[in-house]
Amino acid sequence: MPPEPRTAIATVCLSGTLEDKLAAAAAAGFDGVELFENDLVVSPSSPAEIRRRCAGLGLSIDLYQPFRDFEAVPPRLHEANLRRARHKFDVMAELGTDTVLVCSSVSPDAIDDDELAAEQLYALADLAAARGLRIAYEALAWGKHVNGYEHAWRIVRRAAHPALGVCLDSFHILSKGHDPAPIRAIPGDKIFFLQLADAPRLPMDVLPWSRHHRLFPGQGDFDLTAFTGHVLAAGYRGPLSLEVFNDVFRQADPRPAAVDAMRSLVALKESLGVLDLPSAPALTGHAFAEVVTDPGAGRVLASLGFARTGVHRTKPVELWEQGDARVVVNEGGPAHGAVGAVALASTDPARSARRAEALLAPVLPRVRGPREADLASVAAPDGTEVFLCGNDDWRDDFVPTGETAPGAGVFGIDHVALTQPFDHFEEAASFYRAVFGLTPSPVTEFAAPFGLVRSRGLSAGTVRLTLDSALVRRGEWAPAVPEPQHVAFACSDAVAAARAMRALEAPLLEIPGNYYDDLEARLDIPPDRIAALRANSVLYDRDSRGEFLHFYTAFAGERVFFEVVQRIGEYRGFGVVNAPVRMAAHRARRYAGPPVKTPA
Amino acid sequence: MPPEPRTAIATVCLSGTLEDKLAAAAAAGFDGVELFENDLVVSPSSPAEIRRRCAGLGLSIDLYQPFRDFEAVPPRLHEANLRRARHKFDVMAELGTDTVLVCSSVSPDAIDDDELAAEQLYALADLAAARGLRIAYEALAWGKHVNGYEHAWRIVRRAAHPALGVCLDSFHILSKGHDPAPIRAIPGDKIFFLQLADAPRLPMDVLPWSRHHRLFPGQGDFDLTAFTGHVLAAGYRGPLSLEVFNDVFRQADPRPAAVDAMRSLVALKESLGVLDLPSAPALTGHAFAEVVTDPGAGRVLASLGFARTGVHRTKPVELWEQGDARVVVNEGGPAHGAVGAVALASTDPARSARRAEALLAPVLPRVRGPREADLASVAAPDGTEVFLCGNDDWRDDFVPTGETAPGAGVFGIDHVALTQPFDHFEEAASFYRAVFGLTPSPVTEFAAPFGLVRSRGLSAGTVRLTLDSALVRRGEWAPAVPEPQHVAFACSDAVAAARAMRALEAPLLEIPGNYYDDLEARLDIPPDRIAALRANSVLYDRDSRGEFLHFYTAFAGERVFFEVVQRIGEYRGFGVVNAPVRMAAHRARRYAGPPVKTPA
Repeated sequence: MPPEPRTAIATVCLSGTLEDKLAAAAAAGFDGVELFENDLVVSPSSPAEIRRRCAGLGLSIDLYQPFRDFEAVPPRLHEANLRRARHKFDVMAELGTDTVLVCSSVSPDAIDDDELAAEQLYALADLAAARGLRIAYEALAWGKHVNGYEHAWRIVRRAAHPALGVCLDSFHILSKGHDPAPIRAIPGDKIFFLQLADAPRLPMDVLPWSRHHRLFPGQGDFDLTAFTGHVLAAGYRGPLSLEVFNDVFRQADPRPAAVDAMRSLVALKESLGVLDLPSAPALTGHAFAEVVTDPGAGRVLASLGFARTGVHRTKPVELWEQGDARVVVNEGGPAHGAVGAVALASTDPARSARRAEALLAPVLPRVRGPREADLASVAAPDGTEVFLCGNDDWRDDFVPTGETAPGAGVFGIDHVALTQPFDHFEEAASFYRAVFGLTPSPVTEFAAPFGLVRSRGLSAGTVRLTLDSALVRRGEWAPAVPEPQHVAFACSDAVAAARAMRALEAPLLEIPGNYYDDLEARLDIPPDRIAALRANSVLYDRDSRGEFLHFYTAFAGERVFFEVVQRIGEYRGFGVVNAPVRMAAHRARRYAGPPVKTPA
Repeated sequence: MPPEPRTAIATVCLSGTLEDKLAAAAAAGFDGVELFENDLVVSPSSPAEIRRRCAGLGLSIDLYQPFRDFEAVPPRLHEANLRRARHKFDVMAELGTDTVLVCSSVSPDAIDDDELAAEQLYALADLAAARGLRIAYEALAWGKHVNGYEHAWRIVRRAAHPALGVCLDSFHILSKGHDPAPIRAIPGDKIFFLQLADAPRLPMDVLPWSRHHRLFPGQGDFDLTAFTGHVLAAGYRGPLSLEVFNDVFRQADPRPAAVDAMRSLVALKESLGVLDLPSAPALTGHAFAEVVTDPGAGRVLASLGFARTGVHRTKPVELWEQGDARVVVNEGGPAHGAVGAVALASTDPARSARRAEALLAPVLPRVRGPREADLASVAAPDGTEVFLCGNDDWRDDFVPTGETAPGAGVFGIDHVALTQPFDHFEEAASFYRAVFGLTPSPVTEFAAPFGLVRSRGLSAGTVRLTLDSALVRRGEWAPAVPEPQHVAFACSDAVAAARAMRALEAPLLEIPGNYYDDLEARLDIPPDRIAALRANSVLYDRDSRGEFLHFYTAFAGERVFFEVVQRIGEYRGFGVVNAPVRMAAHRARRYAGPPVKTPA
């Protein structure tokens, strides 16, 4: 196995003052930082104090980023640039960092002349070398004349100064569709620095794309494993350093953001084969889902045909079952009114837990009573507990009640829908993918009554989760129920299940007639089928591979409800197209009067 | 004067359920709505009930929007489209609306054949005509084959059916840079509908630009006066209807959003010469600024060289003065801890108030004691009161104290900085521009310690305001002081003023040495000048026209502080480049210990 690279993060990735950022990076286990000039400029600490603070935190300062618009300028500007460089080299000496990034010029003053660029960079490198420093020259994707890494490397080769090398940034290279394979031909010791960022493919100019929408590795559409593989194959031995400009990360709590960042690098190192992690054991299904509510949720489950099959030996917790669908109703717990836990059946729970720990997921301590099963339990970014169950021992925690119920057609859990806090959408997808090996589907976006919503599914066989989040963080105006969550049960005949549940007086959500009128106009569905859907408030979706029928209950806790779904053929989605109907129906049900608040 | 057009708004512009949206549109005074199919589909009210609700609210339904991908398809799809149309015509009959929008096709099935398109649209128009309905055909900017309004008009002309006309949408035309002047050649009675949206120029594809970033007229970069002028000149007599897809508006309280929307149309009608409003009187300066704080703000003003010159006759309110800078310190009031009011000197306050009222700005009732001046007062979108003063009569409300102070160089108010709540940034700029005739500067964006910030100035002569807002609504993580505001005083020698105020023990903000080291490296400023700035924590900026020196106090109220500025030459900015330094310094001053909260 090749040596494991060091890790670093640019201070610009994180929110807060420099002091906040350094603390967060150190707590997440980074080896070093790239120090952004603006973070230093606003800090009350002198460069020497920053150096001491970093040392105390176990962080090196791997790169300093003060330089723009240096190369290939008229002589007068070149003199001013060198003057500026001397000042900054003084700062670097105080900081104890030896590498400075010089981005290719975007200035209208820059001249398209590689010879001049090489000459001026040589002069800068000479100045740096005299101070024991070195220059990493990087092609910005929107550089005026130099905007490809091969061009930057030609200039560096031409200058041929030992203190001058290139900095490679995955975004600048992959955003332009440049082939990263020729990186292998650059001598490793001339690659002075490596900056990593992923990004979704977006239909916009590269500059705003870069400044607002970068993501941590694995969160976007770039193949960072292949890219970084080329750089390591070239012989690069510096840190893997994250440089991610993202509007959301920039205002989010830096501590979880730094953990998310570090997790992305751990997963990247695993995929590169430079770090050996316990592999993700196969997941064979949903063992159970836990909702944390008052006992009312149990009454709703009863009306869906569930039986209360067990009562916990020591806690105010009940087990409700129908077929292989198992729901634990917990009257206590921090996630009040929501889904508290997702329990997944794992072929090796202990290995799942070791992998989770290696990927910086907090493994939760369990308070065990006598005879209580030893479940591995990990906290997801939003606090949801993820249990990993190797067998049915966890059932021993419950005293069987002997109660049965005729059932209403539910045979298992189809998926659990975990609406995410605004700041955690990307992090949550990374977490479930890296830690548990779930495969995410592409993000979809839809217009809901109270604003745009992003949604994506994650799955591994019959284990399915969905993650939703508002595109823009919501304000005081609705939704009145922030981040609702739900457990979706599988059945083989949704209309029959809805009928049976109605007979049990289940609080099912009424779907407006307008929805069925539209369905009839849009799709060629036989009239008797439409009538059956309409009569039972069952929603409908289809794709090229199959069909999806589903219906919902009213809220069964502050922000939790249930869904019953029927998959026909190979339909892989979650009926997202119908989510706005559900949201409006939930709102109508909870608010009889005008829901509007007084204006600000 | 040409007839005043009716006004309408598409339900998609506003947040909430259909019921919320209709109530907001009616309250803001719209004559009608464009009903979006999705808003109807999720509504529990039948089309007939929606019709009655609209009638009760005084709203007509001017357009129904169910149709995409209609024209120029293979025969099999055409049959399905007509079937769909029949269904939707039934809905329209129930709704009592006669015009349906058909957008040019984006379907891969669409054929590039104008003859076929005309033929199929003719068939649709024929079907519509039999029901007393009509078809408005619109070229989407990203239509597969039809993406310009002149092309859509050629097809409509070719079809030559009386129930077929065009719909013109300013965004689809202006976003592509198409010349709107040829609209004048379209017979007015063949323009069946007009949709208006503004937008900032953004470097991205037109589809996401349209779906996420449209703005109300006057808020973006398009010339909607010229555009709409062409449409009216053609003889169009339908409503001016807003169709604005905007991520922020979609999740904001629909009531102020609808008022903002209506204000944009009132201002547009004024600029078109179809509505006569009282013109905006000239503003001659800042009469005073009011801060609502405990008496501590007075002590801070004293330390800046202000004298307490008056005490209000009936209220716990003090007047503080230095030169022509006047600050009213109010111990009570709803805007606690912030700037409560901006008082502008107007050449005709009564006309200012009439104009404000015509532009839907709430004119505030004043509780007047004996001898109290009758000031016109208007509420800005964020609740800030804007007073309009014609003379100095307002001073009669204060009993002179006879107190004086030596002063510290302040001669007036330079500007008032009103950080805006996230949802109100666009609305605030529109408000100050339309109501008071201030000219906004372009929006700038900068990276601040806790996330990206947008900023713009507004001015008319010596009246200056700045509006800031976070680019992404902030969450629980900092800033600890949401939406701080400040009053900036003008002086002619910032270094001397800072020295004088330090001598008076003013709580001035300390600026880090790193800032001056950077200034020295970046700009060619004489060493003694840098030393003077550094010694006095005075910040510096310059542009091609002049220089700007400024410094800040610590917070003098929950979220209010003061600034002192010196303008040299024709500098027009506000030192925005230094705002991150100020933010970090405020944070450092208010939090001695580690400011981080516990993670979620």
